[in-house]
Amino acid sequence: MKVVIVGGVAGGASCAARLRRLDEKAEILMVERGPYVSYANCGLPYHVGGSIEKESSLLVATEKTFRGQFAVDCRTRCEVVGISSEKKTVELKNHATGEVTTEKYDKLVLSPGAAPIRPPLPGIDLPGIFSVRTVPDARSIREWLDRGAADYSEMNSYTGFQTMTKPKRAVVVGGGFIGLEMVENLVHRCLEVTLIEKLDQVMPPLDPEMARLVERYMVKHGVRLELNDGVAGFRQSVDGSLEVLTGSGKRHPADIVILAIGVRPETALAKMAGIEIGQRGGIRVDERMRTSDPDIFAVGDAVEVRDFVTGQWALIPLAGPANRQGRIAADVIAGRDSRYRGTQGTSICQIFEGTIAQTGASEKLLVQLGDKDFEKIYLYPNSHAGYYPGAKMLAIKVLFRKSDGRLLGAQVLGEDGVPKRIDSFAMAIQMGCTVYDLEESELCYAPPYGSAKDPVNFAGMVAANNLRGDMPLAHWNSLDNAFLLDVRNPPELAVESVPGALNIPLPQLRARLDELPRDREILVICRSAQRAYYATRILLQKGFKASNLSGGMLSRSMLVAK
Amino acid sequence: MKVVIVGGVAGGASCAARLRRLDEKAEILMVERGPYVSYANCGLPYHVGGSIEKESSLLVATEKTFRGQFAVDCRTRCEVVGISSEKKTVELKNHATGEVTTEKYDKLVLSPGAAPIRPPLPGIDLPGIFSVRTVPDARSIREWLDRGAADYSEMNSYTGFQTMTKPKRAVVVGGGFIGLEMVENLVHRCLEVTLIEKLDQVMPPLDPEMARLVERYMVKHGVRLELNDGVAGFRQSVDGSLEVLTGSGKRHPADIVILAIGVRPETALAKMAGIEIGQRGGIRVDERMRTSDPDIFAVGDAVEVRDFVTGQWALIPLAGPANRQGRIAADVIAGRDSRYRGTQGTSICQIFEGTIAQTGASEKLLVQLGDKDFEKIYLYPNSHAGYYPGAKMLAIKVLFRKSDGRLLGAQVLGEDGVPKRIDSFAMAIQMGCTVYDLEESELCYAPPYGSAKDPVNFAGMVAANNLRGDMPLAHWNSLDNAFLLDVRNPPELAVESVPGALNIPLPQLRARLDELPRDREILVICRSAQRAYYATRILLQKGFKASNLSGGMLSRSMLVAK
Repeated sequence: MKVVIVGGVAGGASCAARLRRLDEKAEILMVERGPYVSYANCGLPYHVGGSIEKESSLLVATEKTFRGQFAVDCRTRCEVVGISSEKKTVELKNHATGEVTTEKYDKLVLSPGAAPIRPPLPGIDLPGIFSVRTVPDARSIREWLDRGAADYSEMNSYTGFQTMTKPKRAVVVGGGFIGLEMVENLVHRCLEVTLIEKLDQVMPPLDPEMARLVERYMVKHGVRLELNDGVAGFRQSVDGSLEVLTGSGKRHPADIVILAIGVRPETALAKMAGIEIGQRGGIRVDERMRTSDPDIFAVGDAVEVRDFVTGQWALIPLAGPANRQGRIAADVIAGRDSRYRGTQGTSICQIFEGTIAQTGASEKLLVQLGDKDFEKIYLYPNSHAGYYPGAKMLAIKVLFRKSDGRLLGAQVLGEDGVPKRIDSFAMAIQMGCTVYDLEESELCYAPPYGSAKDPVNFAGMVAANNLRGDMPLAHWNSLDNAFLLDVRNPPELAVESVPGALNIPLPQLRARLDELPRDREILVICRSAQRAYYATRILLQKGFKASNLSGGMLSRSMLVAK
Repeated sequence: MKVVIVGGVAGGASCAARLRRLDEKAEILMVERGPYVSYANCGLPYHVGGSIEKESSLLVATEKTFRGQFAVDCRTRCEVVGISSEKKTVELKNHATGEVTTEKYDKLVLSPGAAPIRPPLPGIDLPGIFSVRTVPDARSIREWLDRGAADYSEMNSYTGFQTMTKPKRAVVVGGGFIGLEMVENLVHRCLEVTLIEKLDQVMPPLDPEMARLVERYMVKHGVRLELNDGVAGFRQSVDGSLEVLTGSGKRHPADIVILAIGVRPETALAKMAGIEIGQRGGIRVDERMRTSDPDIFAVGDAVEVRDFVTGQWALIPLAGPANRQGRIAADVIAGRDSRYRGTQGTSICQIFEGTIAQTGASEKLLVQLGDKDFEKIYLYPNSHAGYYPGAKMLAIKVLFRKSDGRLLGAQVLGEDGVPKRIDSFAMAIQMGCTVYDLEESELCYAPPYGSAKDPVNFAGMVAANNLRGDMPLAHWNSLDNAFLLDVRNPPELAVESVPGALNIPLPQLRARLDELPRDREILVICRSAQRAYYATRILLQKGFKASNLSGGMLSRSMLVAK
């Protein structure tokens, strides 16, 4: 059996290594268009920023590893320029020699990845505008940033060329994962950074109010945020530097521009092979990673996956899923019954001292699908026992099914303990957890690491309280004309108060019930919604109509425009 | 309805607060023998060590909170001195006034906790010997440690009393959680610390080879470890300092002694009430936290729980379970159908720069129960992508069912990313995960936080490879007379080699198969068992009998005595 694997990073490399382990006899040819296989493209922004110093650190396995350890015929700088699914052949072009050869295959695995979107805007090919996908991309960016410095000392003194000074101003276009990681790393390199994003939020997979918290970190670190504005073009100024023109007519000067608008599945080869492309524009595969041609498999960022929670087809380019898909394709080629279960979209991103992570469905995705059988909660627990030094507040949003309590999604932001919580939620979603299960989860606790009631338990309790009818919920962005009751203490109100809200501190509530209306819904407010929950319980048992404003004042700042 | 709750910490306090939320009308009386309710006893060692500076930080909620927010009649320094389950009364002694009163109850909740074991050894009541259970205990230890210092400056110069110098030498008796936390905190206070433990390992819930790794941290930080030696008694030296005498005849001088031998459920009240005590010496309760008397509930460290994995009765004193049990007792008293699902024993402990955590069953527990339907693996992955700075090696042991792949237990040690992994495993065990599920888990990955194949995935893959027959396993402590093949590279062997093992570096293996025996089992060795897995796959497919030595050389140092 001869297997040709196209693409030697994540999915392709995993497939090749796994297939060799399962089948010592298979002839395996892995071709990669670029100069490197199995490199850590997730590390590229950190290499640009300097925290990963050496380029060689990014090279996880080399051509030599594949040849020596895995007996895989591994060829870099080798591109597939033709596919005949009838003859079961691929045409390979060796970029070093220019030679084109034809190889037969029994099974073909496509792992071409996704390409950075590069819209045909005026000036997009000007020097100083970069994408971040490959090791050579990162090298070019580093050279651009460093060359300025070198030239500054060597040349500037006598040429006077402004363009030769060390780049000081960066514009990053696009506020997704790569955009944000590039922003952070350029700030680390002491550039003044402007982030331009067409949408009204950064990090599009997040819900907008959680993205607000990410945006605060940007602003705190001096990043200029330009939301709701798309790029219209680029041009070179008289001094040789760049100018980024936006749809709203603004001009942003820049010494370097990073394009991080998003990625698009590479489907040219798939189209050449005549296999099915899905409605989202990715290669359509079944759960065994087989395309519409039974001898062609596809894995990684180029394929459409089933969203694990909603069951919808989706494009979710992530390294973990790509690796698992490569492994599954190898299993199936080797005659095993492995199946891909879908993608949850578990992801995490460092935002300066903060971390934002999510897993499962967002509210906006559910709304977009017309799903109304869900509720959401916000909570702001400490990352570990408050009495132990270093505890930081987490901001957590959890989505769950109203009808059966099933956990649908979670978003967690904070400066400590975020990975621990998102992975608990991710495992919970994978296993079909309900919020009632989360109430009972037994997670690790010692003062430096957690609390006797972990934030994950706490999320389960808050959600289950709601589902059991013990705590009706209201949200700040749909207050209607309700009666507002603030149960905080007066010193807290002095800092920030809600116009029109009646203040009765919680310890006085039982004695002052006659100040409250019996014919209107009472929305109860406190700082984080905990005391408001206690108050809601009192009111409900005393025959009032009451709801807790989820997340209290801490949610208000995210949900209410000032 | 009148509910009397005995014990105002963890379980009792949770029960009182929850019950009030569910029932605004109930009369709730919570009595606590000590001076404080709802305090953070898990923080006591860190208060002694100084990282939690203020004693007041440990007081999570006060008598006032319970009276004001929860309308709970909360009485401290109030001890139950009599119970009549027939009359449904308790006799309360007010320690401030000496007065004894009788209170009726409709439901009684016992949350007395567990008391430090204090064997009747000669000299155990000498001054300078402390347990660590309550805020006053911690205060006494701090005073003892500080008084020396104060006295040193004020008195020592003219009294010359050696006993008045600042304590320098501490002996901690018992190497469980509290013992280890006290060791660390006393080292932080610059004491010379000796740890005496009767067993042959610290941290008894761990398997001994994982405890070895904990012990290395102790030794690294200058702690004198005395394993396999019990305390026989204490005496005062001529200079006023203490001496700890051990069963083996050793004498350890000490200026302070911490007893952390373990805890024993407080069952005096339960016995007074005539309710059933279980075979492990704790109060026997059903899954609704009801004792053998339908009007008496018990929660927290005083009760026996079902081990979630093995189904056996067990004493597992942990704060998280105690809180959940208190909540469940309140639910049931309020007429709800809540049930406790059992305790997994998820726990975590800081060991200087390291962290050790576990969840589920240990190997020694399974062996003790005669369970043979399990396999174990060891793995040593990076805490996050190796190419990103700060990655640290994790040591992970995972136990799983041979028959169906169910995850049974996990132990994780390392200096980064331990809480994240143990909570993933804990959630997985709760939800009945198999190792096949772990292979497919979608956990968070960005270079600072994880890897595309997270250690948890990796554990699933290693275990599943074994169960699918792709990778037979061997372990260092049962080598028999097998043929040893070391597939590492020669420079690695120069550092540490295995006597009698044949070395064929992995890349040469396919070409040198004729050097290997076809009639003997070949055990394959590398550093961490990854290359050995690749080699095992080659050998199996070429018709050899081969097994991978789980964890490679990294496991050897834990399992083979030198």
